[in-house]
Amino acid sequence: MTEGKLTRADCEAMDRADPLAHQREAFALPEGDIYLDGNSLGALPKRVVKRLRVAVEEEWGNGLIRSWNDADWYLAPQRAGAAIARLVGAEADEVIVCDSTSVNLYKVLMGALRRQKGRRIILSENGNFPTDVYVSQRVAEQTGAELITVDPEDMPAAIAKAGKDLAVVHLTQVNYKTGRVYDMAAITKAAHDVGALVAWDLCHSAGTLPVDLNGADADFAVGCGYKYLNGGPGAPAFVFVARRHIADFWQPISGWHGHAKPFAFGHDYAPDPGIARMLVGTAPQLGVIALEEALKVFDGVDMQALRRKGQALGDLFIRLVDQELAGHGFGLASPRDAARRGSQVSLTHAQGYAIMQAVIARGAIGDFRAPDILRFGFAGLYIGYADIWDSVAILREVMDKRLWDTPEYRTQKAVT
Amino acid sequence: MTEGKLTRADCEAMDRADPLAHQREAFALPEGDIYLDGNSLGALPKRVVKRLRVAVEEEWGNGLIRSWNDADWYLAPQRAGAAIARLVGAEADEVIVCDSTSVNLYKVLMGALRRQKGRRIILSENGNFPTDVYVSQRVAEQTGAELITVDPEDMPAAIAKAGKDLAVVHLTQVNYKTGRVYDMAAITKAAHDVGALVAWDLCHSAGTLPVDLNGADADFAVGCGYKYLNGGPGAPAFVFVARRHIADFWQPISGWHGHAKPFAFGHDYAPDPGIARMLVGTAPQLGVIALEEALKVFDGVDMQALRRKGQALGDLFIRLVDQELAGHGFGLASPRDAARRGSQVSLTHAQGYAIMQAVIARGAIGDFRAPDILRFGFAGLYIGYADIWDSVAILREVMDKRLWDTPEYRTQKAVT
Repeated sequence: MTEGKLTRADCEAMDRADPLAHQREAFALPEGDIYLDGNSLGALPKRVVKRLRVAVEEEWGNGLIRSWNDADWYLAPQRAGAAIARLVGAEADEVIVCDSTSVNLYKVLMGALRRQKGRRIILSENGNFPTDVYVSQRVAEQTGAELITVDPEDMPAAIAKAGKDLAVVHLTQVNYKTGRVYDMAAITKAAHDVGALVAWDLCHSAGTLPVDLNGADADFAVGCGYKYLNGGPGAPAFVFVARRHIADFWQPISGWHGHAKPFAFGHDYAPDPGIARMLVGTAPQLGVIALEEALKVFDGVDMQALRRKGQALGDLFIRLVDQELAGHGFGLASPRDAARRGSQVSLTHAQGYAIMQAVIARGAIGDFRAPDILRFGFAGLYIGYADIWDSVAILREVMDKRLWDTPEYRTQKAVT
Repeated sequence: MTEGKLTRADCEAMDRADPLAHQREAFALPEGDIYLDGNSLGALPKRVVKRLRVAVEEEWGNGLIRSWNDADWYLAPQRAGAAIARLVGAEADEVIVCDSTSVNLYKVLMGALRRQKGRRIILSENGNFPTDVYVSQRVAEQTGAELITVDPEDMPAAIAKAGKDLAVVHLTQVNYKTGRVYDMAAITKAAHDVGALVAWDLCHSAGTLPVDLNGADADFAVGCGYKYLNGGPGAPAFVFVARRHIADFWQPISGWHGHAKPFAFGHDYAPDPGIARMLVGTAPQLGVIALEEALKVFDGVDMQALRRKGQALGDLFIRLVDQELAGHGFGLASPRDAARRGSQVSLTHAQGYAIMQAVIARGAIGDFRAPDILRFGFAGLYIGYADIWDSVAILREVMDKRLWDTPEYRTQKAVT
């Protein structure tokens, strides 16, 4: 790499030296696009195409109801959970795939509050992802608790202040807007020191950071299957309950698949002794199958190496933004320090929405988060260093030529 | 038809006269099998194969995150809900597809109990599907209500007795074991007469009976997408809220997709003014797409004609069981009167589990429900009259030759 100004050739050299570069072959990526939104919807693993064809045409079409046994559908939530467990520092029997992140968060928080009778505070972050806050608000309403949200830097002080009133701390490990990363071990320890439990949302960390739930002594976690885990649009989510909590964990939605003996068709609810008590209804089987297959892409992937690449991609992006886009009014919403940043870099700009539409139209696909955030996600399994160069080049062209300044790009779409 | 003993030729003649016989072509059915378990997992509509290929390979693979807008993914839960609304006697904006039946039931019952403050009884049926009872039990626990279950014939008296203490009646329109049908209008009226609300589970009626929710003045309903609606294994479920209740309906799981403006990413939960307030997390999109496509099979299908055929298939099955299987120890668990019976006939037998395994192995696929029920479902879109003949012939052979009496067929599988 040259010491001064970076060139595309420098980026190409980084790609040649990248031990994870070959992973890109596992994905069916669109020609001509650079996909920087794997933090919102992960790319399609090629093997999922074949697996879903078999699941639909053979297992559903021909096997029909028999496939619950013959195609091993029944334990797919457990198998996919075990595969995720490896990525998030949990044991195989502490994680299961089911429902959505929001529904799982509801189960976890309702159960945590019940366990913490006499403690009345749920502590979260002002900038937490909306669904985390929304679910917490209504859990507070239903349990007589109070939801307090503070800025991330004030979290340790807020934990200490809440003290023996603190029931549960609920945070997202990597902030969806800024990419800021919490110190999971430190926050968890601080909460435990005052007798509180901690529930982590891993939506923006599972599959890209080497999460260590048990190393941090975490109590509960939830996360989604459709971002860095590449399970497909609206893929089912996962839930983690630390083994020490499982045996007497109460969750509010007592559906038949969480029963100890679902096919005994008994009259009274008796929860499964293990993690399956977190299940509710019949698994969304096509989604679970797609996710289970997508997770095989991670076989043999060193999560530390993936983390290093994600940091390097982010560092490169920031350096190129500094080099190529000075004077165009961008701010950096993400930590400059890679150790404190997840696998994304967010910029701010007053015209962010229109700029992002213009950039997407030219083949660099990031996304926009109100009011002014341009998000660029770097899924290290399928994004390379030259992709970063090319994305910043597109961004520069859009700014230099004011290509964003059209009514078309200013019209907000239903989903941003 | 001959007046005395029926023959296979009689059944073939019925098939030739069947105005719905051509619908079978819409399904990809396995060669050589007779599928009598569409009440558990509906058959694969051929058009779903193609639609899912496009959804996976083009919309997810190439469109990626853009498909939420460009492939109209975002409003698929509303579109599928509207298609179901037509089948269950509701308005298009009263039904939405989301989550599982059990999760939707939880939302509905928690909301109903909240609305009915001061009333403390949830009334249901002793023989209701387990998940209905399980969810009701825990809702009662969380709201301070009491769950009372009675036998179906005692329901009107139980409603009258509970009187002004009755918060909500929660019943499944068609019993999963016996196929017994409730008089939805009469039960709903009786409940309303004492000021109670009614929540109907339509799992075994939507897509096979001409359900009339608004004609019966029903308050709430839930149902699954994977039985008679043919949406695929674990297809997402649906929820109905009568329009008069929607605007101030409170549901407990306040996820971001139920928010009035999900992509404004605001800090405080404000529910959507319409049926979308029943949503929680991101839609399980592959499942919703499959269900939406599967529902197109019902375009142009007269639900009254489908009901008549389902009744005729059941009547034929009972008549053939009487004719062919006398003396083999079978009991009839379903009403003999077709007007009081859904699209299934259930037999009882002490060796029911092993008998059903032997019958399945010979190509007539029904299922078993503990402790002694053999269930045969008649999805009129793809089952014909000769199929009924052939199924009873298999059953007779299994009984005459004691083919069920092997250790292999006695070993219970994970999913029955």
